[in-house]
Parts: sequence; C-alpha cells; structure tokens
Amino acid sequence: MKTPGIVHLVGAGPGAADLLTLRAARLLARADIVLHDALVAPEVLALAPQARLVAVGKRCGRLSSAQSFINKQLIDAAHAHDTVVRLKGGDPMLFGRAQEEIDALLAAGIRVEVVPGISAAFGASASLLQSLTQRGRSRSVVLLTPAVGTGQTAHDWARPAVAADTAILYMAGRQAERIGAGLLAAGVPASRPAVLIENATLPNERIHLTNVARLGASRDWVGEGPVLMLIGDVYANLAGATATVTAGDAAWAGAA
Amino acid sequence: MKTPGIVHLVGAGPGAADLLTLRAARLLARADIVLHDALVAPEVLALAPQARLVAVGKRCGRLSSAQSFINKQLIDAAHAHDTVVRLKGGDPMLFGRAQEEIDALLAAGIRVEVVPGISAAFGASASLLQSLTQRGRSRSVVLLTPAVGTGQTAHDWARPAVAADTAILYMAGRQAERIGAGLLAAGVPASRPAVLIENATLPNERIHLTNVARLGASRDWVGEGPVLMLIGDVYANLAGATATVTAGDAAWAGAA
Repeated sequence: MKTPGIVHLVGAGPGAADLLTLRAARLLARADIVLHDALVAPEVLALAPQARLVAVGKRCGRLSSAQSFINKQLIDAAHAHDTVVRLKGGDPMLFGRAQEEIDALLAAGIRVEVVPGISAAFGASASLLQSLTQRGRSRSVVLLTPAVGTGQTAHDWARPAVAADTAILYMAGRQAERIGAGLLAAGVPASRPAVLIENATLPNERIHLTNVARLGASRDWVGEGPVLMLIGDVYANLAGATATVTAGDAAWAGAA
Repeated sequence: MKTPGIVHLVGAGPGAADLLTLRAARLLARADIVLHDALVAPEVLALAPQARLVAVGKRCGRLSSAQSFINKQLIDAAHAHDTVVRLKGGDPMLFGRAQEEIDALLAAGIRVEVVPGISAAFGASASLLQSLTQRGRSRSVVLLTPAVGTGQTAHDWARPAVAADTAILYMAGRQAERIGAGLLAAGVPASRPAVLIENATLPNERIHLTNVARLGASRDWVGEGPVLMLIGDVYANLAGATATVTAGDAAWAGAA
C-alpha cells in the first residue's frame, strides 16, 4: 500500500478566479484529484484541467452529501493519490466545517495542510469600496451565521451582532425576514444600514441597500446566488459601489 | 496634464508571498509605483521589480507618516502614473485605514479599486489547523483591536469579545497584560484558551499557547514581529500546529 498523500484544504475565494492565492492556483495545477463544494465557480475548477474533479459540496437548501461520507472520500483519496485538494468556497476555516475534515484526516494518520482563501466579507468590502473598520465608527467586526443545521439547537446568534460595530452575516439572504426580526429583538437600531450583496466579485454581482427595519422586504430581491448581509453604520454613505445597485429604502436614493 | 491613473488598494496577505491573490500579483507585475506599509515582506515587494517602491507605512510603536500625507502621496502618484498600487498588509479593509485613503482619492476624482487580501486571522488559522468556526462550539468570530490611536478615545473593545464565541485580536501582542485584565473585567472566563502567533505563515512563525488569566505572563514571549491573539474554546485542543510552539500554561503541555 502506498504512503498516503497530503490533503490540502484550499480556499477557493469569494468567486472571481483571480482572487485565489498563488499557492492555491499552484496546488490546483498539480493536484491529482479535487473534491470541491458545489458553489465553487467553473473558472476556478478550470485551474486544475489535469485533475479528477469530484463535487462533494453542500449547498444551502439542496440535497447534500453527509459530512461523514465526505470525510471518508477524503481519506480514500489520500490513500489513492499523492496530492489531494479539498476546495472550499471562501476561506476553509470560516463556516466550512473544516474542523470535522481535519480531525478525521489526522485521526486516520493523513497529513493535512490548509491554504487560506479570501472570505466573502472581504470580497464584498472590495466591491463596495467600504472598509469593515473605520476610525471612530467601527473598531470591531463580527462574522456569524444565523443558519441552524440539522440536529443543531437554535442559539443566540444575534447577541454578537449587537455587541460589534459591524456585523457580517453569512448564509443569511434567504431568511432576511427572520433575521431582521431577530436583530431588532436583540436591540439593533431599526435605522442601522444593511447591505445585501449577491455573487460578490463576480460579473453578475448585485447590491441592495436597505436597513435593519426593512430587511424582510428584501426577500423578493434575493436570487439564486450566494448572498452576504452586511450591517453597520459604516454602510450609511457608500461612495463607490460599482455593480448593479438597488435601493430598498427611499433614504438610500442618494447613495445608490 | 495627463488623465489620472487608477489607485489599486491591494492586500499583501499575512506574510508569505504566495498567499497573495493572483490579481494582486498581476497588478504588482505591471505597477508603475508601489506605496507600501513597512510590514510588507521583501518577498512580496520582489513581485514588482519594475516599479518604484515607496515605504509609507505606519508601524506600531515607530514613527510613521501622517495619514493626510499618505493620502496626498497617493493623489500625486495617480497624477503622475497610470497604475498605482497601495499595498497594505493583510486585507486592506480591516484595520488598514483604507477608508480615509479611498475617500480622499474619490474626492480628488481619482478611480479606486480594492483587491482583497488574506487577513492574519485566516493565515493563523491555517497554521494552527484550527477552524475559526466549529459546529456546536463556535458560531461567531469577532475581529477587533484593543489599540487606541493618537487622538482617539478609549472604547469598550472587550464587549464584542465576550459576546462572540471566538475573538481575534489584532495589534494586541505588546499589551497582553492590559488585554488580559480587560477581558477578565468584561466577563471572559479566566480559563478560556488563548493563542499568540507571531509572524504567522512565515518561516519564523512562533506559537504560544496560554489562557486568558495568564495572558500577561506572555509579555516576555513576544518578539519583534506582528502578533495575533486568538481567544476561544476552539483552541482547547490544537491538534496540528506545525511551527515552534511554547506553552504558557502547564495545562497545555499535552497539546504542545
């Protein structure tokens, strides 16, 4: 039996293929096999033309491979190949269930390396030309998800969103009404600006400007792509958004 | 007078040159001038051999160019060159004072684009093989700084660190004693694991494992490089840290 290969957990970044790291691109170019999430863009997968591509990903609201089966696929791949890439959207270490894969691989005696990726919060900030932090306005940023997975208990997801100056909500777009209500109940001011961004960094990027009180009304705006929700006073004056912008609140007409 | 060039605010990533994005590397390769922070590694600057390099950066505890002077340098560079790169450590939109530069450039009628970078939190997580989020243990991550700049008032920086499951503190290494006391006073459990990582992703990376109660005792461990502080229960069992690890607490002996 051959020596097991290395499994590289690699961040695919926020969408645009040229937002991968150099290290990620070089690994993809020499991978034997790439096990990737459903959300990874075809342009990113095209960086590994020589590799066997296996879609293992979970996608919100769709049927998905169970995590334990993904773990087994990774272990099997390491026994069959030298260079295994596990490609995850954004950064692997944020909302990617990477720890379950890392722990299973280490327990099986397989070497693991992680290559970070640009998470959606940073891709979106670049598109919006709006910094997450700002002197005198935002000194803390919380990254959280209000999604509750199968078998998980509900948790007080809104509390850190109140405590931090800027809150970035992942996997939130399809539950805008519930999230708006949760933020208001937790004490976030109704007038605090909120931004929804779909397909951040991709050519079909869309931006929607609203506020916490009106989040529920953005339900009809949300399309098929991944949506990130950004909430904070720093979004009161977006000077440079470049993509298609819609305003959900009359107060935004000037900014949009 | 020529048409002003474009100023690209580019993230240099956490340290290692191959953790730049493809887009950042391509921009560096065709930049006319690169205005960079002091902390950007020489290996990254080597990606722009054709460009004029200007160090404009601020560095914690050292004399620094005033922000208004940096803004003026950027505007002048755009009037003199077509492709101006403003290179910042990590991601430009997190603790980088990017907004002041963006606003000054837009006010001067100069086009700005932002290229995201890997922030230190993600580089460190890759080194530690420890995810920032984890099912059932960490559903929220706050990124904050306890640093207080000239002319700024103190603020309640510890509050979001209590509310989130995992807290990542930037620019914190040299004030570990004050930070430990602040976290305890805000209600963070004394036994909550803490990790300090210096020069994350670089060959001289160092990792120190401790807890909130003993943060002050890590003062002597901190060296000359940038230090990131990670606090949360997810750091209780670091399985795969690869760099030089020291344990500040006997309870860590097994993990280290």
